[in-house]
Amino acid sequence: MLSFENDYSNSACPQILQRMQETQQEQVPGYGNDDYCQHAATAIAKACDDPEVEVSFISGGTQTNQIVLDSITPQYAGVVCAQSGHINTHEAGAIEATGHKVLAIKSQDGKIAAQDVDDFCSSFYADSNHTHMVFPGSVYISQPTEYGTLYTLEELEALAQVAHNYHMPLYIDGARMGYGLVADGNDVTLPDIARIADVFTIGGTKVGAMFGEAVVFTKHNMPTNFVTLVKQHGALLAKGWLLGLQFDTLFTDGLYEKLSRNADKQADKIRKALLAKGYDIAFISSTNQIFITVTNEQAAKLQQQVRLSFMEQVDAGHQLLRICTSWATTDDQVNELIAIL
Amino acid sequence: MLSFENDYSNSACPQILQRMQETQQEQVPGYGNDDYCQHAATAIAKACDDPEVEVSFISGGTQTNQIVLDSITPQYAGVVCAQSGHINTHEAGAIEATGHKVLAIKSQDGKIAAQDVDDFCSSFYADSNHTHMVFPGSVYISQPTEYGTLYTLEELEALAQVAHNYHMPLYIDGARMGYGLVADGNDVTLPDIARIADVFTIGGTKVGAMFGEAVVFTKHNMPTNFVTLVKQHGALLAKGWLLGLQFDTLFTDGLYEKLSRNADKQADKIRKALLAKGYDIAFISSTNQIFITVTNEQAAKLQQQVRLSFMEQVDAGHQLLRICTSWATTDDQVNELIAIL
Amino acid sequence: MLSFENDYSNSACPQILQRMQETQQEQVPGYGNDDYCQHAATAIAKACDDPEVEVSFISGGTQTNQIVLDSITPQYAGVVCAQSGHINTHEAGAIEATGHKVLAIKSQDGKIAAQDVDDFCSSFYADSNHTHMVFPGSVYISQPTEYGTLYTLEELEALAQVAHNYHMPLYIDGARMGYGLVADGNDVTLPDIARIADVFTIGGTKVGAMFGEAVVFTKHNMPTNFVTLVKQHGALLAKGWLLGLQFDTLFTDGLYEKLSRNADKQADKIRKALLAKGYDIAFISSTNQIFITVTNEQAAKLQQQVRLSFMEQVDAGHQLLRICTSWATTDDQVNELIAIL
Amino acid sequence: MLSFENDYSNSACPQILQRMQETQQEQVPGYGNDDYCQHAATAIAKACDDPEVEVSFISGGTQTNQIVLDSITPQYAGVVCAQSGHINTHEAGAIEATGHKVLAIKSQDGKIAAQDVDDFCSSFYADSNHTHMVFPGSVYISQPTEYGTLYTLEELEALAQVAHNYHMPLYIDGARMGYGLVADGNDVTLPDIARIADVFTIGGTKVGAMFGEAVVFTKHNMPTNFVTLVKQHGALLAKGWLLGLQFDTLFTDGLYEKLSRNADKQADKIRKALLAKGYDIAFISSTNQIFITVTNEQAAKLQQQVRLSFMEQVDAGHQLLRICTSWATTDDQVNELIAIL
Repeated sequence: MLSFENDYSNSACPQILQRMQETQQEQVPGYGNDDYCQHAATAIAKACDDPEVEVSFISGGTQTNQIVLDSITPQYAGVVCAQSGHINTHEAGAIEATGHKVLAIKSQDGKIAAQDVDDFCSSFYADSNHTHMVFPGSVYISQPTEYGTLYTLEELEALAQVAHNYHMPLYIDGARMGYGLVADGNDVTLPDIARIADVFTIGGTKVGAMFGEAVVFTKHNMPTNFVTLVKQHGALLAKGWLLGLQFDTLFTDGLYEKLSRNADKQADKIRKALLAKGYDIAFISSTNQIFITVTNEQAAKLQQQVRLSFMEQVDAGHQLLRICTSWATTDDQVNELIAIL
Repeated sequence: MLSFENDYSNSACPQILQRMQETQQEQVPGYGNDDYCQHAATAIAKACDDPEVEVSFISGGTQTNQIVLDSITPQYAGVVCAQSGHINTHEAGAIEATGHKVLAIKSQDGKIAAQDVDDFCSSFYADSNHTHMVFPGSVYISQPTEYGTLYTLEELEALAQVAHNYHMPLYIDGARMGYGLVADGNDVTLPDIARIADVFTIGGTKVGAMFGEAVVFTKHNMPTNFVTLVKQHGALLAKGWLLGLQFDTLFTDGLYEKLSRNADKQADKIRKALLAKGYDIAFISSTNQIFITVTNEQAAKLQQQVRLSFMEQVDAGHQLLRICTSWATTDDQVNELIAIL
Repeated sequence: MLSFENDYSNSACPQILQRMQETQQEQVPGYGNDDYCQHAATAIAKACDDPEVEVSFISGGTQTNQIVLDSITPQYAGVVCAQSGHINTHEAGAIEATGHKVLAIKSQDGKIAAQDVDDFCSSFYADSNHTHMVFPGSVYISQPTEYGTLYTLEELEALAQVAHNYHMPLYIDGARMGYGLVADGNDVTLPDIARIADVFTIGGTKVGAMFGEAVVFTKHNMPTNFVTLVKQHGALLAKGWLLGLQFDTLFTDGLYEKLSRNADKQADKIRKALLAKGYDIAFISSTNQIFITVTNEQAAKLQQQVRLSFMEQVDAGHQLLRICTSWATTDDQVNELIAIL
Repeated sequence: MLSFENDYSNSACPQILQRMQETQQEQVPGYGNDDYCQHAATAIAKACDDPEVEVSFISGGTQTNQIVLDSITPQYAGVVCAQSGHINTHEAGAIEATGHKVLAIKSQDGKIAAQDVDDFCSSFYADSNHTHMVFPGSVYISQPTEYGTLYTLEELEALAQVAHNYHMPLYIDGARMGYGLVADGNDVTLPDIARIADVFTIGGTKVGAMFGEAVVFTKHNMPTNFVTLVKQHGALLAKGWLLGLQFDTLFTDGLYEKLSRNADKQADKIRKALLAKGYDIAFISSTNQIFITVTNEQAAKLQQQVRLSFMEQVDAGHQLLRICTSWATTDDQVNELIAIL
């Protein structure tokens, strides 16, 4: 059945599968101590326009969030995050499992405002009881957000400023980073991200790779013995070069952006069709995720013909559904979907 | 300076200090394997009208909440709790430090409604993504609540019913249990608590003891090797008999209730005076905590003459303050306070 | 350079790479809810001759050990394990990171004896202080062991008996399971393992797969909400079907055994050459790992021509080295190695 | 029955009980923010001859070890400790419960040698696989040890040197510190300890107090937000001033040393009697713990008349028993014991 359920339904882009074939006879050192990882790290540093970033590769997204946040958040502190943030909603308590409270604050369209973080922190420190409370110790945001929206450059800079005022590193979860970078209207480049964030990820799983997230520490922020921390959290891949090989491929000849552009372009076509047909689109976004509010009846009818993600029951009669394109989405699939809508 | 800041400002009631003196020459076995603990447990079981409850003693309240909730909440689950619940606000993330997310739900006057717990859980299980979320695994409430309010018998029974429908144990934090049991209008007895809760505490620290909480497991709910779990959490007191001695004293000749009654009676006098003077009392309560909303100027003036707890800045011009009586509050202190108000 | 450093140097066997190519256009549901995982689980159950085993797939070995042991070991307990066990030596404290002490007991050639486990446990329970100690809560062994040796059927049955006598599940880490199953002299079949163990793994990473371990729970031992526990530990792969696809391939037409047989056969050739040349082989083994004790000079000379694993400095003048074959080892490589030896 | 079972059988020395009586009417601020704690800290700093030490008070010993070691040991590291160390044997895995492996090394008479720590660490860092292993991150010793023995000044200085060479803080568990300081032949003063250790404790529970350990951080080593860390671990006592009051009493007019001296003096009398009667004393010690190896028959006979601690079954026919004096041991008790021996 036709599916626009998510952006991790296809295994990997042909270029990656081909390189896996080509290297099948090679014997490569384990645990990321190999040339592919080295090349990939260099390519990413170049894309970030910062030769001093430190790059590591981890298989999965929840794992990455867990390890990075557990490493950069002080023991006595929690992680400031949007109410709708992935770590607060759909990671099965992976952050709390490492001992840190997620300090969820109100969000708008998936984003938190610098002012709200400032208010939260200043009222925390103003509280005479604050040593009995969970200190705000780091800030987690996603770019694009869980709702496909994007922080502007100005918003990111303001957030980083507030975070640093309160001695908190800013972590940007870029599981869908590519789809943001190439989106219409986006004004944030990868070098901007590298300049602003203290650590961020560049997602592979959802953007052409079989699996893998690149973790990029800036400003010499990589925690001491990070490899050991990754191992201790159970996440050091034996054949780590497979991660390097994939990211080396993605960051050669602009492939990462090309793949991303396809998803956004297909989403744009769908958005236009939705608007033309009078659908109620829930968030203003130009990335690969589209959210529509439909009646229960419409939802039931749609789901018979195409797999979409159910997000939530908005009220008794209405649902929020997600249409998600990816690097692999074809014109045929989009045309078929539009015919159904 | 006069203080109504909290109910743990005085060391212990005279009866307890006297017994500590009397037993100074005794050599008593360690770690709670002693006759005092045994006697105290029996006395508590009698007060609960249930000979089968299993009683343990732990020094502090946060510690008790941490150990009990970590022991009864499944590894994949979190603790359902009022937004204003102590474990969610003022225990420095002690619950998350053991790996469990606090699932804070909306509360009214410190209480959560059975219906809200039901809605939360039913919507959790209805979510097709719920295996990627934190399961509701136990329910935490406090009686009296952090705002001095009380659950009615009907409310407690409804909560237990909902909790059990979703296979969650109901834990009642009774750090101020005594002040609730003897409060005007309270319709919940200790046997009711023992019948309804799966585990609850009877607070000593705030009700006459130097330190100590009695943990009461009902329905044979005590976790396997609970003593080892207490030790593993760092909380097994070497001279455990000091806990038994104190609770044996408190549960002899109705002392626990007598001490509690004093606090509530003194609070009633203060409440009457506050009403007569036109103060804005924030929650309807008949226990030992009184919350008043005052202007910043009033607050500043009051705090010069008497130590009160600042709770929060309600708005730019107003604060919420707490007046707290205890088993040790004297008529003189109350009269002095009333003169100041 | 020629390498016999380990058995995870090559990406994956051709059959797996081919199926990844073939399925590149497919859209498959995420997180293991797919037909490939279902097929693979059925194939494994068949190979185990037990239709009731419950099979799950996890990317890495340390991760698998961490999640399984944390799930099956009681909170107040630790994991009984050989002094030389992988979880005790080379997993960066991943078990302790989840709160469980590794209870290392003496081992011989990588194996623990049932009698030693029995002695350890009986002396634990005989100790009047044992509630202040870490309970033995589960038993971890590896088959083959870290030294390439194998438990006999009788040894495994005795271990399981002792474990069960003390209410401990027996967990068998089968990261190299295939190399044991087809080894000369081995008398333990996969159905034996499934009958004896409470949970065990069948390693893919070291036996032909790109990555992945099959976790097999027997006797209905799978922990409640195991998927959520995997997610909480950060290990639920988005494209979980990649694990299923690989194990489905490995368990079709006896591929897993064929691949394993190559490694053992090549190791046998090397062992014969070593004996002929008078090398000192450290453990008696017929699996894919060979350990030799050589002088420092010999070691230095060898390492210039072939990559081997340094294990430990035996004494001032001698080292223990490991020669490791794999499913991918070729005749040419072995001949080249033998010429060097 | 006569008991020499341990040194925490009596509640508290008369001076402490008296001050608890005297202050019963006082209202004192909670959580250690009080004058008693301040006075006690100043008195301890003076006794340490170092005005810059930072002193905190915690109720129990296991708790203290757990919080301090979890705070000073890096996340990727474990705690180097004697095989016989309390944290390795009798604290129910409290250290591992916070995620840190206890790295037990061989010990002699309860002590670890600087050379052995050096060997352990140098071989760790020499191992090419060490990033997959648990880093040595801190050193735990006890003074006196679990066997009543004492490190000499030279031994302590050597240990600190080695620890610091490997960037590890040295933590000294002084649960019985007093009994060591005043012991015959001891050449280590409290100022020595404060100069050498990075953090250490001065035990109250076993030396005259009802409960409580003073935690002394030297060289400005107190972790950031230590109070919050204590609270997060569940250990912040509401009536923290009770700890301050007790330590203020113990460190006034040399009471701590007087109390300690009684225990050691009584132990000396017992040791002389044991030697005269030909008993086999197991460790050479001048502190309050005496270990004797006796036949099973002797042990059974002794235990009928006096409570002693059973330590271990040395062989089929012999047991190791402990005779323990304390600050509260009287001449009559000792005479009675000697008559029994």
